[in-house]
Amino acid sequence: MNYAEALQAVENLMMQTVDSDVDVLRDASRHILAAGGKRMRPRLTLLAYEAVGGQNTNEVLPVAAAVELVHTATLVHDDINDHGTTRRGRPTINAIWGRTFALLTGDFLFTKVYTLMAPYKDLNIIFAEMTAALVEGETLQAAAAKAGKLDRETYARIIAKKTASLFAGAAKMGATLGGGTPDQIAALEQYGFNLGLAFQIADDILDLIADSEKLGKTAGIDIAQGKGFAMAMAANGDASGKGVAVLEMEADPAAAFKRKLLAGNYIEEGRAQARNLAALATMSLAILPESTAKAEMVDLARQAVDRDH
Amino acid sequence: MNYAEALQAVENLMMQTVDSDVDVLRDASRHILAAGGKRMRPRLTLLAYEAVGGQNTNEVLPVAAAVELVHTATLVHDDINDHGTTRRGRPTINAIWGRTFALLTGDFLFTKVYTLMAPYKDLNIIFAEMTAALVEGETLQAAAAKAGKLDRETYARIIAKKTASLFAGAAKMGATLGGGTPDQIAALEQYGFNLGLAFQIADDILDLIADSEKLGKTAGIDIAQGKGFAMAMAANGDASGKGVAVLEMEADPAAAFKRKLLAGNYIEEGRAQARNLAALATMSLAILPESTAKAEMVDLARQAVDRDH
Repeated sequence: MNYAEALQAVENLMMQTVDSDVDVLRDASRHILAAGGKRMRPRLTLLAYEAVGGQNTNEVLPVAAAVELVHTATLVHDDINDHGTTRRGRPTINAIWGRTFALLTGDFLFTKVYTLMAPYKDLNIIFAEMTAALVEGETLQAAAAKAGKLDRETYARIIAKKTASLFAGAAKMGATLGGGTPDQIAALEQYGFNLGLAFQIADDILDLIADSEKLGKTAGIDIAQGKGFAMAMAANGDASGKGVAVLEMEADPAAAFKRKLLAGNYIEEGRAQARNLAALATMSLAILPESTAKAEMVDLARQAVDRDH
Repeated sequence: MNYAEALQAVENLMMQTVDSDVDVLRDASRHILAAGGKRMRPRLTLLAYEAVGGQNTNEVLPVAAAVELVHTATLVHDDINDHGTTRRGRPTINAIWGRTFALLTGDFLFTKVYTLMAPYKDLNIIFAEMTAALVEGETLQAAAAKAGKLDRETYARIIAKKTASLFAGAAKMGATLGGGTPDQIAALEQYGFNLGLAFQIADDILDLIADSEKLGKTAGIDIAQGKGFAMAMAANGDASGKGVAVLEMEADPAAAFKRKLLAGNYIEEGRAQARNLAALATMSLAILPESTAKAEMVDLARQAVDRDH
């Protein structure tokens, strides 16, 4: 099974796993899954598995599917909290089925992850840690948005927990299952972690500058809700770079705020950070033998920071 | 470790498991856990373990805690969907911290279940099935409430999925881990299933007739939202007993509806059903050797249907 076939097998497995005799759960789950997405997390699991010499791709498919399903569960719940109406170019589940069923669909996806992960005793410890971190990161983000202020340190903590932990865990599980050495597993975990940070910063910049159509979701939502990269950049953008100059949200600051960000050097600074982190991620791969999987991972790091959607 | 000590150890383990450096997740989780509750599900797991001769109570504690945590996660999310303001005699998480943090706290509890269950490879399959059924049952209930109609067959399907599956799984996991024979495991699963049905019918009747103070949660909420036993009883309460006479909800039917139910024979009929199911549950225990755990389970079945809160 080559990489493209493995990715397709993960799609099929996810679709099959969310089957249910309760129509709305099956339909809503398949609605968001069918919309696609970059599938960064299952890619990491598959590639890490192969990069350390894993031979039986079938055994890693449920883990890759579980990682994407738990990510999808949090997207569904995010869209409730953010009142998002578009996701991956489609109406959100809450927009179509309403909040109650969106909440239950997210819960359903969480329980289906148990199904997929049940056979993998040891990996479940990694899985548990990364998913708890994910929810903690989302919560820190919501708390910062509610408080109307976000400094760079908090922003770093948020993206480490909500994105980098899952990327790191996805790669670590693949490498562990593939029989990697402790050094290889640690290197791939580090690769995932830095890639996750780079990916999230790039994502937050896109939210600021891309148009909604290309992005496939409502752009500018982060600014409107006082969260994300933009807030943090502006908050600490003073020349001294000292202290934590926290921005207090005004009644409707989004438009003025966006102008300020675009006028300043913030976007370029964020892009530079993302590129540095992607380069760091790639450097972690040095100890791995050359392989097509390794080459894919180098490419993945490049794509993560050099994209328009 | 005796039964009371084991129950206390489950409490301690839950409190410890929901620790987090994200304050709101820890505080909100401990808020609802500290409010107590009947702890029916962890009781079932502990008792089933001991009834089949399990000797090392420590090994079953995380499973019992996981079962209660997943139940608690769904309570937290239910209170969002139902706009509930009181639960176990305390303000709900959504009432104190708001909907966004309540949603995330429920998700956090789901992820903490992964932590607890990680070491139990085989049990995770049972766990996955029962939790998916739980969310399916909640969803069927929400769909019936939204449609404003509920027949007895759907009511039976809802309570089988949302309550009896979890009770059955809780007992089955305890019996499996305790080293029960296949017959004993099946008997305890059956006990849990029928007890779950009995418990839920009794609960729905209490929602109808008890006062909110004694109940520790907002009473009458089921009627107001067109769900639960009351709806089903009234819907099919015609003398012929044939067909599915579905009740259509009116604009504000709660008060008139409650009068109709209290005037009819519905409450007594429901109580009789609950008692029959509890008796069925107790009969399943016949194949087990006598033990204090078995005696506790007989008593638990009696309490489930004979209570005022």
